[in-house]
Amino acid sequence: MEAKESLLRSWLSRFEGELEAGMAFWLKNSHDKEFGGFYNCLTRDGKVYDDTKYGWLQCRQVWMYCKLYRETAQYQSEEVRSAAIAGGEFVLKHIYRPSNHRCYFQVTREGLPIYMQRKPFTEVFFILAMTELCRVTRETRYQEVADKVLAKFRYWAREDDSELGRLHLAGEPKCNGLGVPMMFLCVLQEICLDDKKQLEKHRDDFQWCVQQILPHVKKDKKAVLENVSVEGNMLPGSKGRLMNPGHAIEAGWFLLRYASLVNDDRLKDIAISDFILLPFEVAWDSDKHGGGLLYFLDVEGFPQTALEASMKLWWPHCEAIIGLLMAYDEQKEDSILQNFKKVFDYSLKHFGDPEYGEWFGYLNRDGSPLDDNPFKGGPYKSCFHTLRCFHMAVQIIRKILNSE
Amino acid sequence: MEAKESLLRSWLSRFEGELEAGMAFWLKNSHDKEFGGFYNCLTRDGKVYDDTKYGWLQCRQVWMYCKLYRETAQYQSEEVRSAAIAGGEFVLKHIYRPSNHRCYFQVTREGLPIYMQRKPFTEVFFILAMTELCRVTRETRYQEVADKVLAKFRYWAREDDSELGRLHLAGEPKCNGLGVPMMFLCVLQEICLDDKKQLEKHRDDFQWCVQQILPHVKKDKKAVLENVSVEGNMLPGSKGRLMNPGHAIEAGWFLLRYASLVNDDRLKDIAISDFILLPFEVAWDSDKHGGGLLYFLDVEGFPQTALEASMKLWWPHCEAIIGLLMAYDEQKEDSILQNFKKVFDYSLKHFGDPEYGEWFGYLNRDGSPLDDNPFKGGPYKSCFHTLRCFHMAVQIIRKILNSE
Repeated sequence: MEAKESLLRSWLSRFEGELEAGMAFWLKNSHDKEFGGFYNCLTRDGKVYDDTKYGWLQCRQVWMYCKLYRETAQYQSEEVRSAAIAGGEFVLKHIYRPSNHRCYFQVTREGLPIYMQRKPFTEVFFILAMTELCRVTRETRYQEVADKVLAKFRYWAREDDSELGRLHLAGEPKCNGLGVPMMFLCVLQEICLDDKKQLEKHRDDFQWCVQQILPHVKKDKKAVLENVSVEGNMLPGSKGRLMNPGHAIEAGWFLLRYASLVNDDRLKDIAISDFILLPFEVAWDSDKHGGGLLYFLDVEGFPQTALEASMKLWWPHCEAIIGLLMAYDEQKEDSILQNFKKVFDYSLKHFGDPEYGEWFGYLNRDGSPLDDNPFKGGPYKSCFHTLRCFHMAVQIIRKILNSE
Repeated sequence: MEAKESLLRSWLSRFEGELEAGMAFWLKNSHDKEFGGFYNCLTRDGKVYDDTKYGWLQCRQVWMYCKLYRETAQYQSEEVRSAAIAGGEFVLKHIYRPSNHRCYFQVTREGLPIYMQRKPFTEVFFILAMTELCRVTRETRYQEVADKVLAKFRYWAREDDSELGRLHLAGEPKCNGLGVPMMFLCVLQEICLDDKKQLEKHRDDFQWCVQQILPHVKKDKKAVLENVSVEGNMLPGSKGRLMNPGHAIEAGWFLLRYASLVNDDRLKDIAISDFILLPFEVAWDSDKHGGGLLYFLDVEGFPQTALEASMKLWWPHCEAIIGLLMAYDEQKEDSILQNFKKVFDYSLKHFGDPEYGEWFGYLNRDGSPLDDNPFKGGPYKSCFHTLRCFHMAVQIIRKILNSE
């Protein structure tokens, strides 16, 4: 018991250190003081190697800064607050497109639009950013624009997504992908937090999300499938057999957090056993390959064509850290803590960078860096998964220590 | 001299063997006798792991079968001819969309459309397939439809590509990408072959292609850039610093082939020195990493975010084999043959599969397979680069041997 407490305290202190080093990296290197917003493409030691600004990442960094501002004493500073506002204003002006409530995926340093995706995920991160910015500033205009985009996102998710511009051709099977309902669930949680009235107001959407997410579990295949038919059945071919363990685990902790808020014990059990523990166990690579979470699986063992399938990426490890800690906090099973220790040790050893702070993102299957010249920030890696993980890990471990 | 001849003879015999084994693999495993067309997604030993049909690959296989039918005694068989026709009819019926002369990227096994790209490359391979099929069958309806699509492709390449559906937003720099002019050059060559009247008829388009391709060379950077401005200058950021050595070398042998046809000695020299030898030398990986051609380079050494940047892929090695043999045939320099030997030895050792025939596609930087369960056919790997390389290598080595 004491050994466990001392382990928890040592992990706590490591996460506090990683949070401090990671946040120092972004505060120092990513602020564009001339045009607002954040530099996203940063070398290992923080130099800008490309000044393109990515919509997902601009929004996520605003959200992350606001969260840390509101929830930690350390980052409740004018520096963090004003950087969040400057980022939010850039996003509002240059990422958001008021005419159709869509958001650009990529803009120039100055904010001129380069590219719009046909997926609605920049919009998700925009809602998160504006919602948090309203809490930090108490300016309701941020919430008002978030509400407009949320209404659109809800329509695309639940009614009709043809406005997004992707043709649905006759041979494409109608598909329930995990991404949309899990991100919708995340957005709803961030809007409501633990406000019972808000939870009640969005109850129907919450239930829709849960109903869309649960059929992805296929216990007989030991799988959480990324894509199922609208009836919840397995789709043919590689698309139907695809499992994205990091996505499954992330969906798992979204579900667990929601189940805790609404006191749904059955949903808690499903979230932990099927979405967190099952994917962790099937995706943890063998000792022969040095462990770590595989990025994709074909649940029937057929060849995979995605280049990253057998790589080790930072973000599924971040999600596993959060998911396993939440699951342990709920169930207090030692076996969960043993899995947590595996992913903690692996991540700090392979992704961590004591010299410059913030984690590396992309490793070969054997845990070596994918490239001689690894970057810290790129088109999909920014001030988000790592810091969210460190911050939440600190919060959860403190809660566990206080309750013991 | 005798040593060299004996080396050339040993290479010839290896390429003959690879061609036979590769062609046997596709003939045995890829024909869909029920619905026509070809299975594209095949395991190492030829099992279908997904029955989606890819437009690029359907067209390329038709082209490859026709080429081998016309140019080799071994494959001038009814089996190859009827498979090419069955493939061509599938393509004409299910990949080609007559209403706007576009082609689908992906269709179901039965031929229902799944996805259309906003790039015009399925159309390029469609023109190649129909052009060759007309030569094999002497049915002009194939050439007629190829001509219609060629006129469209020419319009998209030279005049206006807005019909392709990709918005050009204010922040996207106007860009001359290597892909369009080099594939246009390839298509023109395949249409004309060595017919002087045809070459004359398309002279203006040939010249446009050459004019668009040449500014990609930046000697001071030892680079052939993938993207330059419309004025031929370097673009800012990662996009501007990107080099795709396999593309450069492929463009090199297209240029060299064209220069030979029109007796342009200056263009021959540029093709060899700048597009074939330069990219080969800068992209050949160090002994520390086991050699092989790197997939992408950042010409100023900044971090790269593409997952495949430091991997070794089959097709640039195929292009290097063709390019270096053509260059040696032209210049007879021993140093070119030494480079050829490096890429030949590397490719046979790492990509070759003596057990089942046809090459593996994707290796880690160190030359090990990217995945425990490597495939032979996937969304971008089919009956094309390997067999084209083996077939052309056989032709060029025979020519060299006959001339010595």
